Amino acid sequence: MTSSSWVPGVTPDTPFSLANIPFGVISTKDDPTPRPAVAIGSNALDMKALNGGIWLGELVPELKGHEHVFQQTTLNAFAALGRPVHQQVRKALRDLLTAGSSHAAKLQDNEELRQKALIPLSQAKMHMPMAIGDYTDFYAGYHHAFAVGSMFRGPAAALQPNYTHLPVGYHGRASSIVVSGTPVRRPWGQILLDPAAEPKQPTTAPCRRLDFELELGCFISTPNEQGTPVGIGDAEDHIFGYVLLNDWSARDIQSWEYVPLGPFNSKNFASTISPWVVLADALEPFRAKGIENKTPVQDYMKEDKAETAIDISLEVDITTDVVVPQMIAHHTLGGCNMRTGDLLGSGTISGTEPGERGSLLELSEGGKKDVMLYGMDMRRFLKDGDTVTIRGVCGGNGEKVGFGECTGRIYSAVQR
Amino acid sequence: MTSSSWVPGVTPDTPFSLANIPFGVISTKDDPTPRPAVAIGSNALDMKALNGGIWLGELVPELKGHEHVFQQTTLNAFAALGRPVHQQVRKALRDLLTAGSSHAAKLQDNEELRQKALIPLSQAKMHMPMAIGDYTDFYAGYHHAFAVGSMFRGPAAALQPNYTHLPVGYHGRASSIVVSGTPVRRPWGQILLDPAAEPKQPTTAPCRRLDFELELGCFISTPNEQGTPVGIGDAEDHIFGYVLLNDWSARDIQSWEYVPLGPFNSKNFASTISPWVVLADALEPFRAKGIENKTPVQDYMKEDKAETAIDISLEVDITTDVVVPQMIAHHTLGGCNMRTGDLLGSGTISGTEPGERGSLLELSEGGKKDVMLYGMDMRRFLKDGDTVTIRGVCGGNGEKVGFGECTGRIYSAVQR
Repeated sequence: MTSSSWVPGVTPDTPFSLANIPFGVISTKDDPTPRPAVAIGSNALDMKALNGGIWLGELVPELKGHEHVFQQTTLNAFAALGRPVHQQVRKALRDLLTAGSSHAAKLQDNEELRQKALIPLSQAKMHMPMAIGDYTDFYAGYHHAFAVGSMFRGPAAALQPNYTHLPVGYHGRASSIVVSGTPVRRPWGQILLDPAAEPKQPTTAPCRRLDFELELGCFISTPNEQGTPVGIGDAEDHIFGYVLLNDWSARDIQSWEYVPLGPFNSKNFASTISPWVVLADALEPFRAKGIENKTPVQDYMKEDKAETAIDISLEVDITTDVVVPQMIAHHTLGGCNMRTGDLLGSGTISGTEPGERGSLLELSEGGKKDVMLYGMDMRRFLKDGDTVTIRGVCGGNGEKVGFGECTGRIYSAVQR
Repeated sequence: MTSSSWVPGVTPDTPFSLANIPFGVISTKDDPTPRPAVAIGSNALDMKALNGGIWLGELVPELKGHEHVFQQTTLNAFAALGRPVHQQVRKALRDLLTAGSSHAAKLQDNEELRQKALIPLSQAKMHMPMAIGDYTDFYAGYHHAFAVGSMFRGPAAALQPNYTHLPVGYHGRASSIVVSGTPVRRPWGQILLDPAAEPKQPTTAPCRRLDFELELGCFISTPNEQGTPVGIGDAEDHIFGYVLLNDWSARDIQSWEYVPLGPFNSKNFASTISPWVVLADALEPFRAKGIENKTPVQDYMKEDKAETAIDISLEVDITTDVVVPQMIAHHTLGGCNMRTGDLLGSGTISGTEPGERGSLLELSEGGKKDVMLYGMDMRRFLKDGDTVTIRGVCGGNGEKVGFGECTGRIYSAVQR
């Protein structure tokens, strides 16, 4: 049954429906201090202001004594309270925002508070939702790994022998992760202008093969102790929520530098995330069966349910086969400690059809073919001034659970 | 000319001489709040207590208004003040601690303050000196790269074509870096028990080839803005100081997982650093010519001085050929922003002689030969209960600039 909200602007088409209630960090002209908020339709509900007017600890007993989490400049303190508290808070907020519900009047009929706490999204500046300790990028998108591996090594050797046994991942750069809308500068790097020439002679130049990568990002809520792995059955309890992630990639820098220790400068100049964190519970209704792995996974990654993936329609209607609990179980297997706010990237998500590719590298078949992108003319890689926007949504019929936009514009390289 | 200190216990052999004055973070039984200190001989000088009794801003005008940096639980705020301030503070402290100097009486003759601020190292608990945002590990030790590369690919292909052109580096795990003395648990991981068998079938088991890696760590002081590279000429200004670093490595996990994106679980369970940060200025007198690179480096990494390396005698008398300014210039070339407290690892430092190897992998020639380690019986890799201690020192004759110890003991894997 579809409930409706008394808040104006909650259209049947909004990604921020009552079924969503995603968390972000906003500031306004009047109050430039960043603070937690949730998105509802075309408004942000300022959690700091709301908590000043409605004693949230009375609606959500688990929150009592922790209300200060809504006075922080990031969501880390709220995330650290753990999934049962997130569930209760989300439920209470949905109740507060639903027309005719038992608690709706508390906010709906309090004009002063409503005026203060409900802020049009157009007037809210979005900030990084979390302080990110460590960022790990996985390579879990099977179709992407296969397509890119085929380009580099041919289809027979496209996937390394370990690929079907473990979620291949590597540590990325946390400092340069920015929120949607932040300008991205084209990076300089070492590039082989003539890859065939011997001896190899790199040049220092601005990247000529700048790419995006469409990924799903997952934020960690509660930490685990160093030396203590997270079992696959407990992994879900460590998930706070999800964002869209654009892992900008400099392909010409990457192909020269990545042997033998992986990508470095080709990735660390910037990654962009969408500003609203969709809580893990909001995605529960969209569980789906993941892509079948014919190789039996090791015991420590075996889940006891069939529906381990999430069905998200990304920009080009790709369903993700991202299995975050396996990533967490694998990441912590040796005892690595995750901290609140750590970000896990899924790796590029691609489908099987030619149009369903999550990067230009794949769309242009390694830079050999011109590609038509929405609103741009033909290109193989990104030009200065290009804007890349990723959108993703689950569900429909007035109950859309959407991520909003993850967008970034390319600015020309610095002068050297 | 060698000056002497009025502080008892500053022997000619101490690594913490007047020529050193390294910074760390201590706590005591009486005051369990971590706080900055410097090491002098066998004592720690509590900077918080000192600043309560002596107005440091009067001795060091650049510090005025910033004295709160000594009330923090890490050195990040002090590091962020920049190298000129570190220089002045170190100079003022050396003056305060030197027998017969103009300011010595301020502390030497103030018994109450002296009792409070001078704490025997045996009574000081050491904490992580910095809050580490990102950890980057380089692979800059030429002899190590060549030895390990030879093992995997033979001497002719030991080094990849990019090796002589750029400092190969990768992003490591910041959350699991611990201070010297913290126990290290043997990690579980995916391991190929029979690497020759086809198809490859990994097993989940505790690591059987646990190794150490002897490295030098460098902490970043002032940040650079995202999108703005640090020029090689300015790189030194971003260096706060140095520690010893043991990058524990699970070789059997590493060899299975590392293709194509680099080491992950084989490294992220723990890295250990020595607790005292030796400031960049304390190492200035020990500059040396680095190992000659026959390949001309790209302009953005060209230094305008001949002595670009630092001559540190590590445990087995290996001189490092670590060129940190090149690492910083390369790391930020594409615009990656460094933050105060970021840690750069040199990569394993090895010499050219059989005994001068910074890891068991090299000493045991890939696990094929038994090795005699100080105070242990013969082994190829580390056993439960083994303790690895790294020491490093520059100079001598009462002016030793030492790092103290970087030590860790291996505990058995968790039960699963």
